[in-house]
Amino acid sequence: MKEVIAIIRMDKINDTKKALQEAGFPSMTCRRVSGRGKKKVDYALIQELIDGKPIGDPNTLESISESHRLISKRMIIVVVKDEEVKKLVDTIIEVNQTGNMGDGKIFVKNIEEVIRVRTDEIGIEAV
Amino acid sequence: MKEVIAIIRMDKINDTKKALQEAGFPSMTCRRVSGRGKKKVDYALIQELIDGKPIGDPNTLESISESHRLISKRMIIVVVKDEEVKKLVDTIIEVNQTGNMGDGKIFVKNIEEVIRVRTDEIGIEAV
Amino acid sequence: MKEVIAIIRMDKINDTKKALQEAGFPSMTCRRVSGRGKKKVDYALIQELIDGKPIGDPNTLESISESHRLISKRMIIVVVKDEEVKKLVDTIIEVNQTGNMGDGKIFVKNIEEVIRVRTDEIGIEAV
Repeated sequence: MKEVIAIIRMDKINDTKKALQEAGFPSMTCRRVSGRGKKKVDYALIQELIDGKPIGDPNTLESISESHRLISKRMIIVVVKDEEVKKLVDTIIEVNQTGNMGDGKIFVKNIEEVIRVRTDEIGIEAV
Repeated sequence: MKEVIAIIRMDKINDTKKALQEAGFPSMTCRRVSGRGKKKVDYALIQELIDGKPIGDPNTLESISESHRLISKRMIIVVVKDEEVKKLVDTIIEVNQTGNMGDGKIFVKNIEEVIRVRTDEIGIEAV
Repeated sequence: MKEVIAIIRMDKINDTKKALQEAGFPSMTCRRVSGRGKKKVDYALIQELIDGKPIGDPNTLESISESHRLISKRMIIVVVKDEEVKKLVDTIIEVNQTGNMGDGKIFVKNIEEVIRVRTDEIGIEAV
């Protein structure tokens, strides 16, 4: 079994939930997190702003922010069979890939065991 | 070492904390999460409601909710020796198993190393 | 790849972010958690309070609290190459080790794969 953890934009959560449901991954756990990536101040983008690029776009503001500021994100956790990882990852990317900084990351981890509390069921059937 | 992650009902947190303490697992990390399982709209339950089943029970409302709505849950994380996993899982199930939808899930993951920041201690003794 | 998870004091987050940035670990995910360790009521400390130790120090109050009370903490998650784990752990300890109860813990876990949503990049380069 694998645990797939996606850190995505706040405003992508509803589309992602819908896409996961449709792709056959109804079970999930969510939480709010904050994070930062590698990016530094983007001087080219600041120049674009000076040149009149609309400042209303949240990605624009995000991209010129100081690199150490933390940005609110949504974390989604889904547990799947090993052979379902590719489909799950592709589903998440399809909904979340805008091509802009801040699209997020997906982490894949091993999971040893799952138990359903209600029934004591063990293994992937408990997911 | 293993990391045991339980996702339980919000109103079971105090009983679970008490039970873990008594079972010899005082150390833990908690957080609020939201999640959804596999369940679909439960038409039998809706019929029971129409027939006069009290609506005040939160489980009743939870069970008829749309399957894609996220429900607030508590996540508990405890790190233990491999041979303690069974006792820990049994303790969590004993407190949290009501037999109703939404009792939660327990995930078991490998953990490579633990370090106590105060003393630089490494390994299970640092938990 | 390894996932390094540090649970630290709330008031250490800014110094830790700064130190991680300077040590070459700009990417991170944060969240608020609550937790408790192994400690029991510290009667020696209560005596010190009776003897006039200032009560304003949050560590003092934390240390005499009941052992089952949960304390707000910050969780920081950083994903690094295996050979960077030591430097990362040392950086976190240097900033967070006060020698008092509640300095926190660091957990190290394997991570199988990382994907950058924006570009489909896979592996450590996607972090």
